[in-house]
Amino acid sequence: MPLFLSTQDAGFEADFAALLGMKREEAEDVDQAVATIIADVRARGDGAVLELTARFDRLALTADKLAFSKAEIAAEIAKVTPEDRAALELAAARIRAYHERQRPSDLLWTDETGATLGWRFTPIPAAGLYVPGGLATYPSSVLMNAIPAQVAGVKRLVIACPTPGGVVNPLVLLAAELAGVVTVYRMGGAQAIAALAYGTETVQAVDKITGPGNAYVAAAKRRVFGRVGIDMIAGPSEILVIADRDNDPDWIALDLLSQAEHDESAQSILITDDAAFGRAVAAAVERRLETLERRAIAGASWAAHGAVIVVRDLDEAAVLSNRIAPEHLELCVAEPEKLAEKTTEAGAIFLGSWTPEAIGDYVGGPNHVLPTARSARFSSGLSVLDFMKRTTLARMTPEALAAIGPAAERLAISESLQAHGLSVRARLDRLNG
Amino acid sequence: MPLFLSTQDAGFEADFAALLGMKREEAEDVDQAVATIIADVRARGDGAVLELTARFDRLALTADKLAFSKAEIAAEIAKVTPEDRAALELAAARIRAYHERQRPSDLLWTDETGATLGWRFTPIPAAGLYVPGGLATYPSSVLMNAIPAQVAGVKRLVIACPTPGGVVNPLVLLAAELAGVVTVYRMGGAQAIAALAYGTETVQAVDKITGPGNAYVAAAKRRVFGRVGIDMIAGPSEILVIADRDNDPDWIALDLLSQAEHDESAQSILITDDAAFGRAVAAAVERRLETLERRAIAGASWAAHGAVIVVRDLDEAAVLSNRIAPEHLELCVAEPEKLAEKTTEAGAIFLGSWTPEAIGDYVGGPNHVLPTARSARFSSGLSVLDFMKRTTLARMTPEALAAIGPAAERLAISESLQAHGLSVRARLDRLNG
Repeated sequence: MPLFLSTQDAGFEADFAALLGMKREEAEDVDQAVATIIADVRARGDGAVLELTARFDRLALTADKLAFSKAEIAAEIAKVTPEDRAALELAAARIRAYHERQRPSDLLWTDETGATLGWRFTPIPAAGLYVPGGLATYPSSVLMNAIPAQVAGVKRLVIACPTPGGVVNPLVLLAAELAGVVTVYRMGGAQAIAALAYGTETVQAVDKITGPGNAYVAAAKRRVFGRVGIDMIAGPSEILVIADRDNDPDWIALDLLSQAEHDESAQSILITDDAAFGRAVAAAVERRLETLERRAIAGASWAAHGAVIVVRDLDEAAVLSNRIAPEHLELCVAEPEKLAEKTTEAGAIFLGSWTPEAIGDYVGGPNHVLPTARSARFSSGLSVLDFMKRTTLARMTPEALAAIGPAAERLAISESLQAHGLSVRARLDRLNG
Repeated sequence: MPLFLSTQDAGFEADFAALLGMKREEAEDVDQAVATIIADVRARGDGAVLELTARFDRLALTADKLAFSKAEIAAEIAKVTPEDRAALELAAARIRAYHERQRPSDLLWTDETGATLGWRFTPIPAAGLYVPGGLATYPSSVLMNAIPAQVAGVKRLVIACPTPGGVVNPLVLLAAELAGVVTVYRMGGAQAIAALAYGTETVQAVDKITGPGNAYVAAAKRRVFGRVGIDMIAGPSEILVIADRDNDPDWIALDLLSQAEHDESAQSILITDDAAFGRAVAAAVERRLETLERRAIAGASWAAHGAVIVVRDLDEAAVLSNRIAPEHLELCVAEPEKLAEKTTEAGAIFLGSWTPEAIGDYVGGPNHVLPTARSARFSSGLSVLDFMKRTTLARMTPEALAAIGPAAERLAISESLQAHGLSVRARLDRLNG
């Protein structure tokens, strides 16, 4: 049974603090193993990648087979059913349309001194996307990572995806094609991250690596950070649903279960202002659990990390929501926009009962790579900006330098940075004589 | 003597690659010491912070003295000369004017299915700014970190600054006041980062920590990342100047030295299409070095990491510049805007001979916290966006769900996420009868 709390309980604050502080995932300590693998790939390049692929993926490759050929990709994509292809194409089109609106604007202006100031956005030259193999291979994640990069204008976009025993998900290759990926490498784990960050004879190094992965991949991404950019290190998924009594308990139960089924570490929380409704949802969860293929996973998540919290009113719900800072927030209330003004800390908000979170995982348009573990307080989901960088621009005229240079010189002197001051002074002296 | 290369030399590619790969800083391994300090602050709160402050900063404080009082701040600020105050106020006003243009826009639209989509930016609730004590206390860095946070709308902005022996730079406190900082704590090192990330009895935890610091501070920021947001881990400063012969060699020499004087690990590189001009700049550097207060530091940096590279033409200069991806790039050429179109990889570009980099450090307006160590390929300088986060918004209507829900259901099934599909199907079934 999940936690059942009420803000009117005497012990609520302590119970809620414990819920917030709950550690849902034990980080596997693989850092030393990963350090060894990265050093091996840096030292031996392709040789190391091929050897590790043979060992971990039971796949004997030669360097020229590390990337899928065009013919291999075409053959795999041919296996996709027309219905699956249509669904993936709809998702790609909607994700692209949403992300195209995120393209930033350059700006350049001249201020009152005559100085020209501004900035310019340019795409990151090359990006690598990690796609897990096996069970957690999600074609939707390929779209969610690759389309923002494509919209940003990244010139070279590659994928690394392990293919244990040589098996690949055809939908992953189709998603890659729809998103403009130029090369798909059959490699995974820390060795793939190392190859993307440092390059090998066959793999050209990239500038940024994004995408989910297991503990080895996460540790490798942390280690190569700085050499290349990385996206966030994602934790287990989570949802908070705020629902009033005017909802079908079964719909809300399914929304909670659609997070719980991801992973035993996932977390689903319901906040409601009606205790009877909360109990009805909990009962509906139990009924639906019996029928789910993934009931072992979803049931374990719900029992260990699930919670139903009864509040006095929706204002109180918003306060708790901001303390949770959920990855996904569903507002199944009469005036969701009004409540959303108060729920400022959330990765993605789903407004109204007709917007199940699963829509956002696939076809809504917004990105499904979102901040977890309360990091929505300070970070955002993946976007086009994650594949661009901003260069600031400044141009002084002699007049502008005359106007603001003396202040720069004075501050440089106050910071004991003499040459800074002199580089301005030498120019001012030319103006003055 | 610095490296003197020409792209026409037989060994150029190898020499240039060595320059790019040069390790300028040995990372001090303080990670274990930092882990212990963080654990201590988490366990003992104020007690640990005060004990460590007494030990490292030779300063015996009580918890109620951890933050400067208003009277103490006023007394320190009264020591600032009118000229220094005016310079700092000019800098603050210009930095604020630049960053106010970075405020992002919210967007909400309705698409052809009737779905409402968009996003919303909100400020990070609380931010902590680390300000080093001692020699490297730069009031300009306080402005560069705090003003973007203030413009973003961060409600609670605090500073942690060690005050060895109780000494503080009055300009730092004035800069804090100008930038809307609410509290300045007398604490530094890993203990300050831990206190900001986890909170103590006296220090309220923040959501993001930015600002420069020594090896202990950098290691602590890495460790608390995830619990709070952090900015980049900055490396030693660097400048690349691309200059043609129509420049005063002395100006360019001073620009190179204004990076070199920061730190023995700093790097200054000149690329020119005129070998004689390159030699003239190198000679000017030697002349200026003799007169500099910080000649030991600047001379060591120039000798160990400096370089003059002679190229055939400016196109070749742009190619090399993009491989270097410098933090600061000065374009002292006849048509700097034209060249800037090709130099896509740079943190900040200074256009034309009248724009010494030092202007950007203080009063230009753009931020001086910029990506180092080739990370301008994939990251950007500090901005207002670093103190905000974006929440995506989606609202389906029954019609919108009918239009795109079946595709979501199909993709959910293809990913074996049954509850995801059911959460959509339950709603579609209601529509269908």
